[in-house]
Amino acid sequence: MSINNNFERLGGEYIFAKVSKKLKTVDKNGLIKLGIGDGVLPLPKPLVKSAAIAAREMGKTKTFKGYPPASGYGFLKTAIKDYYRRIGAYISEDSIFVNDGAKSGLASILDLFDNITAVINVPSYPAYLSANIIRGNKIYHLYANAQNNYLPTPDGLKLENCLIYICSPDNPTGEVYGRDLLKTWVDFANKTRSIILFDSAYSRYVTTNAPKSIFEIPGAKTCAIEVNSFSKFACFTGIRCGFVIIDEALTFCGKSLNKLFAARQDALFNGVSYITQKCAAAVFTKKGERAAQKTVDYYLDNARQLKAVLKGGGVKVLDTTNSPYIWFECPDDLSGEAFFDYLLDNYKIVGTPGGGFGKDCKNYFRLSAFCTKKDLSLAKIRLQKALKSL
Amino acid sequence: MSINNNFERLGGEYIFAKVSKKLKTVDKNGLIKLGIGDGVLPLPKPLVKSAAIAAREMGKTKTFKGYPPASGYGFLKTAIKDYYRRIGAYISEDSIFVNDGAKSGLASILDLFDNITAVINVPSYPAYLSANIIRGNKIYHLYANAQNNYLPTPDGLKLENCLIYICSPDNPTGEVYGRDLLKTWVDFANKTRSIILFDSAYSRYVTTNAPKSIFEIPGAKTCAIEVNSFSKFACFTGIRCGFVIIDEALTFCGKSLNKLFAARQDALFNGVSYITQKCAAAVFTKKGERAAQKTVDYYLDNARQLKAVLKGGGVKVLDTTNSPYIWFECPDDLSGEAFFDYLLDNYKIVGTPGGGFGKDCKNYFRLSAFCTKKDLSLAKIRLQKALKSL
Repeated sequence: MSINNNFERLGGEYIFAKVSKKLKTVDKNGLIKLGIGDGVLPLPKPLVKSAAIAAREMGKTKTFKGYPPASGYGFLKTAIKDYYRRIGAYISEDSIFVNDGAKSGLASILDLFDNITAVINVPSYPAYLSANIIRGNKIYHLYANAQNNYLPTPDGLKLENCLIYICSPDNPTGEVYGRDLLKTWVDFANKTRSIILFDSAYSRYVTTNAPKSIFEIPGAKTCAIEVNSFSKFACFTGIRCGFVIIDEALTFCGKSLNKLFAARQDALFNGVSYITQKCAAAVFTKKGERAAQKTVDYYLDNARQLKAVLKGGGVKVLDTTNSPYIWFECPDDLSGEAFFDYLLDNYKIVGTPGGGFGKDCKNYFRLSAFCTKKDLSLAKIRLQKALKSL
Repeated sequence: MSINNNFERLGGEYIFAKVSKKLKTVDKNGLIKLGIGDGVLPLPKPLVKSAAIAAREMGKTKTFKGYPPASGYGFLKTAIKDYYRRIGAYISEDSIFVNDGAKSGLASILDLFDNITAVINVPSYPAYLSANIIRGNKIYHLYANAQNNYLPTPDGLKLENCLIYICSPDNPTGEVYGRDLLKTWVDFANKTRSIILFDSAYSRYVTTNAPKSIFEIPGAKTCAIEVNSFSKFACFTGIRCGFVIIDEALTFCGKSLNKLFAARQDALFNGVSYITQKCAAAVFTKKGERAAQKTVDYYLDNARQLKAVLKGGGVKVLDTTNSPYIWFECPDDLSGEAFFDYLLDNYKIVGTPGGGFGKDCKNYFRLSAFCTKKDLSLAKIRLQKALKSL
């Protein structure tokens, strides 16, 4: 037995941990947090009610529930399936695996494969890279930049049998894959016997007619796995619930990935709390859906207002309308880390240096719109000043 | 990229899944479940109250909590540390990593190592074997049998740099490692630069002065990782919470395993629900502790009564007093699977065939004492009849 030396290669990749360390030394008073994508709006009332009722059910012999099914309760899987049907994606209940969130979901899928070549965008959500680094996987980068409208295409890609990460709406760029481009990826994956890992954690933020699920695209069921989460639209970052969708038609090297993943979950996971699942199911009621929409609208409005201030200050902001994140080149040729310090030290605004989302993004910056309106109005004033004073 | 072929080697190892498949075809009416170790007593009132309060806190802006710390909230880690202090194990808060249960905890630790040689008892909790099979690890078996009082010792063991699984009280045998024997293992691990993975999920069932934690043993901090769970004493199988303890002094190949595991959790896990952690913390209050003791006493009493019936019927039952499980050689030279069918088909009692806990345990059987008193009295009558009619 030896140590897994891959951890050394993680280095400072995981910017959230790095930033949070820096923040430990800072006076919290008056700090405006536009760093990590963590909600500030409370859990909506219908969800609170559902969780509290479930807690009481657990306290009575007749309604107590022991081990949950490893793949999730039927009531939640039915609600998820019905929601997907409403957005035009026809998935089966047996294709759904409820878990404790997207980060766990993304990591757990890697167990199904060996000798993985992961195709990961630069920039991208750091957990894609970390999970693959820890396993010593080969990593191939695609670059999201102005030439490809920040949406890499498979044009000229010479790989096959690989694991392709697509996040849409994207974290951190906020860009959304349109139906045609997503179809190009699905076709590429089917042709090259590759698997698309589609992260739809921000799908509720889609305001255009862009796909919210990869399963809206013909051919996706034979090449794609979708990972979703309740965190960003249902105020669930502190509750922890998400799910993985693997269609029963999805095979790799002749094996059913749905069956393999079911075996993986049975062996290494014991399911999600009944209270959590009841809370999650309440999202799909009329009241729950209304609350989710209100949450999404609130953060989208924040993003719009922050973007307007940045644009007004001459910053080259990506012109996105479907995301709680704002991605831009730092003004005044500053590096992301320098701009981070500048905003933090002088204006008490916390953002995230672009370098955390990929080595080549050192001059970029991400602002998150997950803040209260009160913080938003302060942030706008401070940002305006900050940009003027550069 | 290729498929992880190790899944094929899982075969029918995971008896719980196998048994549950069989049970799907059976009339549930009047069935007495002494199969899997799943509690039937409801979540104690102080815990329900704590969960419901936490749910309401999540519904208010001022008390809402977003992403939990990846290693758990301070309030829960303090409560765990204080409990360990009360049983004579001095651990630090920074050594505690709260997670969603022992099965996840056991699997997550494997990420820290490469080329693992796992030393696993026969019989043992099937998740040890599954997790190692899925990763293609080398597996070395130690046999618990009458010669070693069902407690394997390191005597004559020629291995080094290995991962040694010890469960005490043991699932399925119910045997407990005494202080001296555990010290022998700790000394062996320190001498051979091996790591002990100590599963204390059943430690609350210890009624003698046997250690409840490996950290009661001098020298354990430099060679042991402890995995614990709230499932079996706090009625948490449906709530999902546990924790891993890795002392800051524990190194392997010169690396701090505490730091490595912290990096692992940061990268691949997003923490446990605030509601769950508040519910778990309530276990350590006076009322919570009383409820936990009541739960343990209830199941221990069940185990005593079931054992008495088996003994009365001439069955060679292991004479254990610290476990909710009863492990025995099947009567009448029956195989475990035959005895399973016999009890199920004729007496509507569900047990677990020994083969699920190791290939060489085909003639053994496990009964779980996780049942209501009502089911217990029925089970006793039916078992008596079943043994007489053989």
